[in-house]
Amino acid sequence: METTLTKDKLLFTPGPLTTSMTVKQAMLRDLGSRDIEFINTVKQVRNALLVMGEVSQAQGYEAVLMQGSGTFGVESVISSALPKVGGHLLVIINGAYGDRIAKMADVHGITKTVLKYAEDEYPSLEDIDSTLEQNPSITHAVVVHCETTSGIFNPIKAIGEVVKKHGKTYIVDAMSSFGAVPTNIADNQIDFLVSSSNKCIEGVPGFSFSIIQKDALNACKGNARSLSLDLYAQWEGLEQNGQFRFTPPTHTILAFWQAVQEHTDRKSVV
Amino acid sequence: METTLTKDKLLFTPGPLTTSMTVKQAMLRDLGSRDIEFINTVKQVRNALLVMGEVSQAQGYEAVLMQGSGTFGVESVISSALPKVGGHLLVIINGAYGDRIAKMADVHGITKTVLKYAEDEYPSLEDIDSTLEQNPSITHAVVVHCETTSGIFNPIKAIGEVVKKHGKTYIVDAMSSFGAVPTNIADNQIDFLVSSSNKCIEGVPGFSFSIIQKDALNACKGNARSLSLDLYAQWEGLEQNGQFRFTPPTHTILAFWQAVQEHTDRKSVV
Repeated sequence: METTLTKDKLLFTPGPLTTSMTVKQAMLRDLGSRDIEFINTVKQVRNALLVMGEVSQAQGYEAVLMQGSGTFGVESVISSALPKVGGHLLVIINGAYGDRIAKMADVHGITKTVLKYAEDEYPSLEDIDSTLEQNPSITHAVVVHCETTSGIFNPIKAIGEVVKKHGKTYIVDAMSSFGAVPTNIADNQIDFLVSSSNKCIEGVPGFSFSIIQKDALNACKGNARSLSLDLYAQWEGLEQNGQFRFTPPTHTILAFWQAVQEHTDRKSVV
Repeated sequence: METTLTKDKLLFTPGPLTTSMTVKQAMLRDLGSRDIEFINTVKQVRNALLVMGEVSQAQGYEAVLMQGSGTFGVESVISSALPKVGGHLLVIINGAYGDRIAKMADVHGITKTVLKYAEDEYPSLEDIDSTLEQNPSITHAVVVHCETTSGIFNPIKAIGEVVKKHGKTYIVDAMSSFGAVPTNIADNQIDFLVSSSNKCIEGVPGFSFSIIQKDALNACKGNARSLSLDLYAQWEGLEQNGQFRFTPPTHTILAFWQAVQEHTDRKSVV
């Protein structure tokens, strides 16, 4: 077996990527999704994600896991956060993943305003400020932290300041940054941060997660446009009995818990 | 490692369930989602599913994989198959999973007619016939093959005959039956059959699949109510370059391919 394993190419793609053997070996178990050990693992994962985001439940933040890839996670946020009546999303775009969010707004019939820049250009804080000034109906603003397409890092803290100056809800797609670039969610004034299992935390693909400011999470109630991607119902389910509403990717979550522990170990060595 | 592994309880839950060690070991590799070996595995899995459903591409059937649990798969079918204008779903219910489909219709604002029976009662073919007779606006009918809640097996062939007598599209949720109960999709006149990786085929949880009659699949174009759960776009992506549109659960699919092969081997021994 070992011989076969070492033959595989190392993956330098943005994800899925090459994970440690111990992360993969954590999948050599079948746990029931209602098993107490699995429920505890989900709880530990959710807590660890808050720690990684430098926030806590006491500060009013919650971590919610969602089946599917990162796009499923971002769509669960967009389609659960924006109210059905009066929701208006500012999409700040400088790459393919920003474009994808705009597409999501269209699919769900969510009113959107777009600020679009070249892939090698930072969004202009002045543009964001004046757009929010001129469009008071905007309720939420979203930006991608690290655009996987180009690798550009958008200034999420400075953008957060402008968004919050206007009292809007702030969503950050941190798919390719969270776990690699220290991100204090409270300091950056982020209401929804979305990332996935198979990026910088180095787990295997299969689910995404959001770290959410609790008032913003409560505001999601009843907004969802689908049953599966209902972020509020998913959180409610996890809170009620520690379980996913619908069958979770148990093995992927066991791998992720191992990856989270290795991530913490690496960090403490550095 | 072996010692730890044997300690886990055997799972007799409907899924996730205890899988073979070789199925789990298939996850000890990291393959890129655009890697040719992975693309070929997806292709082999899709072909094997058609064989399991006793149909072929030549006969006009397609297999589509979708990230997430079985519910994500059923929702991808319901929210992609029913036209936005004029879609009307007959939901035949005798258990919790039938109820869940009715809930999906509600979330998506799809007009529905419900025929509801007790958990230990078979749906009445006469009721289905007269309901379709009296409600010519109904476009699709859906039933759960084996209701996980009770284990009841609904007479999908007889129901299919009534549904097709009225010229309606026929959807079957075969979550807890497909792979265990031989189901010839063409003979049963099924247009959409949905099941998941972690049930009777004995893979690990993480994705669902649909086997679809091609005219019914083509009719899905432009119907989807979400980006992630767009069944037609997912199929189109798989056909264009063999890849998922959004990051697939690579390890789960490698495990499933192993499970499919073991399923075939078991069948040939029996």
